[in-house]
Amino acid sequence: MKQFRSIFRKTKNSEKIITFVFIAYATISSMAALAEESSITSKIRSTFDNTIGYVTHSSPAHFNDNNELLQPEGYRGWVHIGTQVTPNDMNNGKAIVPEFHNVYIDHKSFNHWKKTGEFRDGTMIVKELMSVGDKKALTGNGYFMGEFTGLEAAVKDSKRFPKEPGNWAYFMYGMKYPLLDKVAAKPTSECNSCHEKNAKDDWVFTQYYPNLRTTKPQQSTSSAK
Amino acid sequence: MKQFRSIFRKTKNSEKIITFVFIAYATISSMAALAEESSITSKIRSTFDNTIGYVTHSSPAHFNDNNELLQPEGYRGWVHIGTQVTPNDMNNGKAIVPEFHNVYIDHKSFNHWKKTGEFRDGTMIVKELMSVGDKKALTGNGYFMGEFTGLEAAVKDSKRFPKEPGNWAYFMYGMKYPLLDKVAAKPTSECNSCHEKNAKDDWVFTQYYPNLRTTKPQQSTSSAK
Repeated sequence: MKQFRSIFRKTKNSEKIITFVFIAYATISSMAALAEESSITSKIRSTFDNTIGYVTHSSPAHFNDNNELLQPEGYRGWVHIGTQVTPNDMNNGKAIVPEFHNVYIDHKSFNHWKKTGEFRDGTMIVKELMSVGDKKALTGNGYFMGEFTGLEAAVKDSKRFPKEPGNWAYFMYGMKYPLLDKVAAKPTSECNSCHEKNAKDDWVFTQYYPNLRTTKPQQSTSSAK
Repeated sequence: MKQFRSIFRKTKNSEKIITFVFIAYATISSMAALAEESSITSKIRSTFDNTIGYVTHSSPAHFNDNNELLQPEGYRGWVHIGTQVTPNDMNNGKAIVPEFHNVYIDHKSFNHWKKTGEFRDGTMIVKELMSVGDKKALTGNGYFMGEFTGLEAAVKDSKRFPKEPGNWAYFMYGMKYPLLDKVAAKPTSECNSCHEKNAKDDWVFTQYYPNLRTTKPQQSTSSAK
C-alpha cells in the first residue's frame, strides 16, 4: 500500500486523470454489459436487497410481507436445465401438468451447483408450461411448442421455510393466462412430499434435467458445454 | 472536463486513493459478476477479438484460418428459445433429426432481437440434440430427456458469408458423441435453401420458438418474461 501511495503521488495529474477516466470507463462498460446479460430489473433488485440486508443471499426469489412469492421476471434468460412434454393426447385428453415443461434455474445457483453439486440457500427453479402447437413439421412427426400457458416455481430457503422438508417451498401461478402476480407456498403434502420421495438430488428431479446431471461435480456422464 | 480537472487537483491525495480503490473494486467486482453470468472463456475470447479488431462484432462464433467454426462453448447458459421433440418412435423408428432439439441464441443477439426484431450480424443459434430417455413419469406419459447426442449451429455473418442467402451458414458437429471439434459450413442446398423457403423470420424458424415469437417488437402475442 505504501508503494502504491508513493507511485500515485509521483504520477502527474494528467496521467491520474487518464487512469481515472480509463477505470471509470471500464466500470461503466462492465456494468452495462452485466445489465445486458440478464434482467436489469432483477439485477438491481438483488443488489438492493443485498445492500440493505433484506436477504442474506442473492436470490432471485422476491417475497412480499405476506410471504407470497412475486411472479419471477427474466427467467427465460436463466439457465435452461431441461424440457419435458406430457401431451394431452398421450394422457387421455388431459395431462396432469399440460403439456411442455421448460425448466430454468437462476445463474448464481447453477454456478454454485457446478462447483459443489448442491443447491444453495436461495436457489430458485422455475417451470414454465406451454401448449403443444404443431405435431408435424419438416423434420417429421413430433411435438412442437405452441403458446405459454402456465408457471410454477420452487425456492429453497432455510430461513423462510425452516419447517418445509429440505427447506423447499413450491408455488403455482396457474395453468392458464392471465397468471397470478403473487402466490403463497402450496401445502407440504401437495408438492414437497412427492419431490422428497422421488427426486434424485435434494428434492430436484435431476434425473430429467441433463444440464444438471452432467454438470454435477465428479459425476459427469457427458462433457459440460 | 475543466471543472472535473479542477476538482481533481483540489482533492487530497488520500481522497484520491480512496476514490481510486473504490472504482477499481467496482470494476473488478462488476467484471467478476459478468464472468460468472456467462462463459468466462467465451467472454475473454470475445473481448480479445474485439480489441485486436479480428471481428467487427462481438460474436460467440469463432472460426479458424480454414473458415471452420469451432465447437461453441457455454451455449447451455445462453438464452433458450425453444425445444421440440421428433421421437424415433413417431417417425418409423428413425427421425431425420433425432430426437429432442434444444435451441439457444447468444445473449447479445437476443437483446438485439428484442430491440429491433432483427438478427444482428454475428448472431449464433445452436441446436443441441438429445435422445428420449423415459416415456413415463409421475406427471404422466410423454417424452423425457435422455442424453446429449448431437450439435448443430447457424451463424449470420455478412462479411464471412457474403454469398450465402441471408448471410446464414449452417454447421453440423454430428448426431452421435464424440462430436467434431470444428466443421466447415454445409453446402447452401443442404440447409440454407430449406430455411429460406420455410422459416418465418430471416431464415429462423421463429414459428417454433416462442421466446423469439413473443419478444419480437410490436408483434408480441404473450407477455415477455
